[in-house]
Amino acid sequence: MSGLSEIARGLSAPQGFVVASQAVATPDAIRLVGGVPAAEALPVREFARASAELWQDPAAAIASLQYSAPHGFPGLRAWIANREGVDPDRIVITNGGMHGLTLAVLTLVERDATVAVDDPVFPGFLWALEVATKRVLPVPLDADGLDVEHLARRLAAGERIAAVYTVPDFHNPAQVCLSADRRRALVELADRYGFHVIVDDPYRELRFAGRDQGVRAFHDSDRAVHINTFTKTLGPGWRVGWMVLPGHLVDPVIRLRNRLDVHTGSVTQALVERVVTSDDTWFDGLVRDAAAIYRERAGVLVDALHEHLPGAFEIRAPEGGLFLWARLTDDRLDPADLFRRAAARGVLYQPGQFFAADPDNSSSDRFLRFAYSDRSPDELREAVRRLASAFRSG
Amino acid sequence: MSGLSEIARGLSAPQGFVVASQAVATPDAIRLVGGVPAAEALPVREFARASAELWQDPAAAIASLQYSAPHGFPGLRAWIANREGVDPDRIVITNGGMHGLTLAVLTLVERDATVAVDDPVFPGFLWALEVATKRVLPVPLDADGLDVEHLARRLAAGERIAAVYTVPDFHNPAQVCLSADRRRALVELADRYGFHVIVDDPYRELRFAGRDQGVRAFHDSDRAVHINTFTKTLGPGWRVGWMVLPGHLVDPVIRLRNRLDVHTGSVTQALVERVVTSDDTWFDGLVRDAAAIYRERAGVLVDALHEHLPGAFEIRAPEGGLFLWARLTDDRLDPADLFRRAAARGVLYQPGQFFAADPDNSSSDRFLRFAYSDRSPDELREAVRRLASAFRSG
Repeated sequence: MSGLSEIARGLSAPQGFVVASQAVATPDAIRLVGGVPAAEALPVREFARASAELWQDPAAAIASLQYSAPHGFPGLRAWIANREGVDPDRIVITNGGMHGLTLAVLTLVERDATVAVDDPVFPGFLWALEVATKRVLPVPLDADGLDVEHLARRLAAGERIAAVYTVPDFHNPAQVCLSADRRRALVELADRYGFHVIVDDPYRELRFAGRDQGVRAFHDSDRAVHINTFTKTLGPGWRVGWMVLPGHLVDPVIRLRNRLDVHTGSVTQALVERVVTSDDTWFDGLVRDAAAIYRERAGVLVDALHEHLPGAFEIRAPEGGLFLWARLTDDRLDPADLFRRAAARGVLYQPGQFFAADPDNSSSDRFLRFAYSDRSPDELREAVRRLASAFRSG
Repeated sequence: MSGLSEIARGLSAPQGFVVASQAVATPDAIRLVGGVPAAEALPVREFARASAELWQDPAAAIASLQYSAPHGFPGLRAWIANREGVDPDRIVITNGGMHGLTLAVLTLVERDATVAVDDPVFPGFLWALEVATKRVLPVPLDADGLDVEHLARRLAAGERIAAVYTVPDFHNPAQVCLSADRRRALVELADRYGFHVIVDDPYRELRFAGRDQGVRAFHDSDRAVHINTFTKTLGPGWRVGWMVLPGHLVDPVIRLRNRLDVHTGSVTQALVERVVTSDDTWFDGLVRDAAAIYRERAGVLVDALHEHLPGAFEIRAPEGGLFLWARLTDDRLDPADLFRRAAARGVLYQPGQFFAADPDNSSSDRFLRFAYSDRSPDELREAVRRLASAFRSG
């Protein structure tokens, strides 16, 4: 049976980590795998209260069962706009961060165009990008995030791109933040060469050390699409996020999103709007409490690695987000072999190779990504003990 | 500022009815405009109870805040599969009917391919179709739905299509149902010529007279994608629907939907699953009660038209769904002029021209579509009185 469209034919099958790991992991394996919020950090009680209020208010309940505007609930957009420091007209509510990425790709990336991406890169973006293209220009990261100078040299040498994709805050997988200077340089480059900047910022709220590098450079640019989500703060299950769009892109994005699924669910938006607007300080408090949980877990993980595997990794203490990106110091170690031994001993992480933007030419395979967010301190310590046992068994 | 993709450039702006009407309608206008469920037909109490249960169950609450599978909640898929009489593996949960249509279009329709469509047609499908193509082959409808023989002649004459789109039950706007014979003939034609059938069936549950023509022909075909939604029964605000896919299309659709927005919201699915599975007979009862409301309203509308505008329209009494498709009997009447006069007197409907698949060659402009679902009997009677006044003022 044939008859699939070019777009459908271009979408690769699920691959890599999950399938491979399930074949070898022990049943009691500790999974340091996904950027999943800690259950303890999710506001169940507040949603219970908001739900009770909503269903007891006949007018609000009926409204939440009916159609709503494609841009999203006005009160929710206004609340987000106020936090972002932009006009509410520039906010479009999405079904989560991935939805924002795909809306940006379908709107901005011509078929088979080239898109510059972080290397290492969040592989979910490469999958989303396949709806338009598989041509990527990997741009290396350093301690200050995407190497904008490297990109500038490639552009000066004649390379042409439709867009650049980067995670500027607590990069997945590489932890780093894009410096304020580079944020400005990146949008200047976008102006000069006429490409768009797709800014994927789901971890921005989860800072527990260091200094915020700001998003003003993105918001001031006609070339930057800034994508965020409630996934890491209110929970992935809501599938609610937002885009901060330059004015000229609001209509094109709305035209597309209206065709894809009309609007984000009204009940969902009614509940999310209620919890975030219930009290001016509530969301900041939620995020502060969540960040405290992740700070503790990051600290436990780093300390345990230093204690049980001294010198085995080059590590930077995370300043926020959900991931530790650790480089193997022993160049003779086979990372695939280590991964198999670790899985057999009951600990799973994401091998760095999974994040290589250019699989043929990447140093990512010398890294391990540990997601510490949804594991307790005790589980993290036990995971590292198991990993140490895997190292010794080599 | 340029830089939009070909897809984005191909999406037409919102147009037609709404904009035109808002310019002239009176503030107290009665709107017989949208296929919107009656507030009285929506199960607020049941969702209130399901919500209370969900948030009081800590494990279920946390699970509903986390990621879930791209295919949808297993219990919800199983319940739908049982009603549809298919294997649960063939069910994919969507964000409503439009989402199903766009997933089908992006998966099955090659760029700039031709798609055969009902004429008159649900214009939302033409808008969705623009993500792939604007080339349509209009196929007329008669009392038995899409004229499959007409399509067969066009195909025999050399016309080639990627897909055919039809609303088989209580057609929007034309009320009619596709006969069982034509359902079989359509999928046979699809086999012979190698196209897909996109079956859009949101009104199927809302039958209050006549005999169901069945969906087995679609479910037995490798060529048919059957799309339905809870929009008209549980409410549009949920944005939850489903596709019944032939086995070979499940993976391609999942690959695309996973990229577009990962999965339908978990809280949303948890609540919808709870209400529909709470009791084996509950959903049937809900639908029966809703159909009774729509039967009454359809009857009131038809009776009022006969009483106040005898002979002005050719009318068939609806057997289900949300719309009356009434043909003007006086060929000298200017429908645009009538529409303006009606709006000025405080009644709005959708001019038939809005639904023409081929605006240059259509009899749709001789029709008016009245949506009776979300107006009370008193409002419907008053609307017809105003319409009669508009006729007299011509």
